[in-house]
Amino acid sequence: MLYKEMTKAELLALRTELMSAYEEKKGLGLNLSMARGKPSKEQLELSMPMLDVLNNNTNFVGEDKLDVRNYGVLPGIKEARRFFADILDVKPENVVLYGSASLTLMYDTISRAYVKGILGSTPWSKLDKVKFLCPVPGYDRHFTVCEFFGIEMINVPMNEDGPDMDMVEKLVSEDSAIKGIWCVPKYSNPDGYVYSDEVVKRFASLKPAAEDFRIYWDNAYIIHHLYPDEPAQILNIIEECEKAGNPDMVYEFCSTSKVTFPGAGISAMASSEKNINSTISMMNAQIISHDKMNQLRHVLFFPTMRDLEEHMAKHAEIMRPKFETVVEMLENELGDLGIAEWTNPKGGYFIGFNSMEGCAKKIVSMCADAGVIMTDAGATYPYGKDPKDRNIRIAPSFPTIDELIEACKIFIICVKIASIDKILEDK
Amino acid sequence: MLYKEMTKAELLALRTELMSAYEEKKGLGLNLSMARGKPSKEQLELSMPMLDVLNNNTNFVGEDKLDVRNYGVLPGIKEARRFFADILDVKPENVVLYGSASLTLMYDTISRAYVKGILGSTPWSKLDKVKFLCPVPGYDRHFTVCEFFGIEMINVPMNEDGPDMDMVEKLVSEDSAIKGIWCVPKYSNPDGYVYSDEVVKRFASLKPAAEDFRIYWDNAYIIHHLYPDEPAQILNIIEECEKAGNPDMVYEFCSTSKVTFPGAGISAMASSEKNINSTISMMNAQIISHDKMNQLRHVLFFPTMRDLEEHMAKHAEIMRPKFETVVEMLENELGDLGIAEWTNPKGGYFIGFNSMEGCAKKIVSMCADAGVIMTDAGATYPYGKDPKDRNIRIAPSFPTIDELIEACKIFIICVKIASIDKILEDK
Repeated sequence: MLYKEMTKAELLALRTELMSAYEEKKGLGLNLSMARGKPSKEQLELSMPMLDVLNNNTNFVGEDKLDVRNYGVLPGIKEARRFFADILDVKPENVVLYGSASLTLMYDTISRAYVKGILGSTPWSKLDKVKFLCPVPGYDRHFTVCEFFGIEMINVPMNEDGPDMDMVEKLVSEDSAIKGIWCVPKYSNPDGYVYSDEVVKRFASLKPAAEDFRIYWDNAYIIHHLYPDEPAQILNIIEECEKAGNPDMVYEFCSTSKVTFPGAGISAMASSEKNINSTISMMNAQIISHDKMNQLRHVLFFPTMRDLEEHMAKHAEIMRPKFETVVEMLENELGDLGIAEWTNPKGGYFIGFNSMEGCAKKIVSMCADAGVIMTDAGATYPYGKDPKDRNIRIAPSFPTIDELIEACKIFIICVKIASIDKILEDK
Repeated sequence: MLYKEMTKAELLALRTELMSAYEEKKGLGLNLSMARGKPSKEQLELSMPMLDVLNNNTNFVGEDKLDVRNYGVLPGIKEARRFFADILDVKPENVVLYGSASLTLMYDTISRAYVKGILGSTPWSKLDKVKFLCPVPGYDRHFTVCEFFGIEMINVPMNEDGPDMDMVEKLVSEDSAIKGIWCVPKYSNPDGYVYSDEVVKRFASLKPAAEDFRIYWDNAYIIHHLYPDEPAQILNIIEECEKAGNPDMVYEFCSTSKVTFPGAGISAMASSEKNINSTISMMNAQIISHDKMNQLRHVLFFPTMRDLEEHMAKHAEIMRPKFETVVEMLENELGDLGIAEWTNPKGGYFIGFNSMEGCAKKIVSMCADAGVIMTDAGATYPYGKDPKDRNIRIAPSFPTIDELIEACKIFIICVKIASIDKILEDK
């Protein structure tokens, strides 16, 4: 029954019941987290054999004819560039490797634009105003990078097939202060949405007012399917940009953080050769070479794409029941109440959740009081400001199934209480 | 006999003889390098057992109570902060860890000053002019960082006990555009000089005109002694700055690049807690955590400082004969000729060499033609401009002893020929 159709008395009675359940949960002194997209211990164990692939029998002199244990090979070893090229379906010369975090690569790419501009454009530090479009809800760490560099963020609504492209096209073509847009095109953070072919094509065909406008295509979940037999397919943005005559307009990012070890993986950027070569030449001021031993460790652990797929299928085995558990519990407990909606992703690390307006902060805070940590309400919006205070990101990966069930029970109780309070306010 | 005292005829005869030796060497088609401070293969082998320390028996949950294989612990794991604290003789809370390259840490530290300023000062990108003092000869990659950020470099002469402190004190106190100075205080690059206690104390007592002036103390060779029984000792700059009432005035850098694997080690910065905390808070926009598995790998490989010392003594065993070979050959072949001088370092990776004025470029170029690659002449000076064209950095670490002897023979022939040509010009 819809909460809105219940009488005040009914709601109050229900609230009393829920509060008693809530207090009981609180008494358990739990310490659970659905806050961050952290792989579980079980997932980490999958990559343990990777720690043994480098040993005294290893040939450390690869295709670059240099000992990977020593200095050199700034763009990354050939074998590892090809590894990412295969994942991203581009040529190895379109790939540059970085350290353990694609976030650092994104930050540094923007940092270099700030200091030097892009392919000869005015350095952003010399401009009065630099703006980025931010599809919302989105990834908080993208927004943090913008804030660090004083970049003004403009919200663009996300639809199930990608950002509102009418708005993107209009803004990008009219305002030369707009230098970029953040995209998580496959299994988006936090909704798990997948960009449609039409959206990707419209991105590739943008006519930006700024010559140094770039699409920051964070393909973080490119191979992170929950249902490996029905993987989401999106168009290849590098290829589409080439076709549309905009070869330099996109930087694509990806990493093995959620393939092998978070914080100890390898990361890469794909782009036009012009962009890649410019990046490599600027990287020369910052580093001699990234950790090539870790690059070699990865390529030896994944000799073929087939090995990588099999490995990702094991991740899916662990992740899928968790996502299904959460979605099923939400469906069963909140499905008929008219107080919330949520997504049902087929990959990635998150489930998007919208409560009634004005309830998200309260839900997250009540959860915390009962020992369940959620991502901060508002974190999915620039400046931490969700204008409707309703979006909550659910990260089901880290807890065990039992913990997840416990955490969801508490979350659901909190959603119900906050919704009743909201409805009562209006009655 | 001094070349200068030889007659023109004698010099010409000698030149003919040397050119014939040179052409013979050229015919060998050698491919040797004394260009970069690269450890040799033999040195790399010393750290191979480190690749085995992480395995299924490892306890990945350390003092931070978090699985190091997962996200988190931005400043680096406690165990590894203590590792560097012990090396640098500071407290662990004065240390922040970084990725595989201290160069990146230096670059990023300057980059953050460029974007944000230091502890509230005006961001350098908003200033008309930023200047750094550069003791010369010095490390080319320091200069490259300055060039990248458009920082004007001012040469300061290096003496055997450190930079010319009269000049440093005067410039730093008078010009508020001077925001930093590069120092390699122990076994300096390229001369192998060691800063005296007086120099360190004068550094700590600087009275800079700029509030955001910092000493960039690159202690790259802090434990890289050639004679471990007689290690060079320098005063602790962090402690001296504290004593002098300038606790925030220094950033100290160090890494394991030349302890374990170049490009696959770990790096650290030490500074006041104020500077460190400010750095950590800014790092939050750039990364979730550096490679903590590699941090753990290092601390497990070096459970105590004694283990580290024993490991470095093995490096010394390999390096010492190479340095002694070069210095002995220079002494025997050039000692009496009055055409060059060189240093005799007790640690580090380089030997400093000065030819007659106006000869360095020619020597390096002749060496290259005969298959011996030296660091570019001029590289030891900002903008690649050695005003006297005489400084050459010799890096003896990478070749085998036999290769080194061959390379030195050729180098010595080239020095002699270039010197004779120079003297003949003036006759």
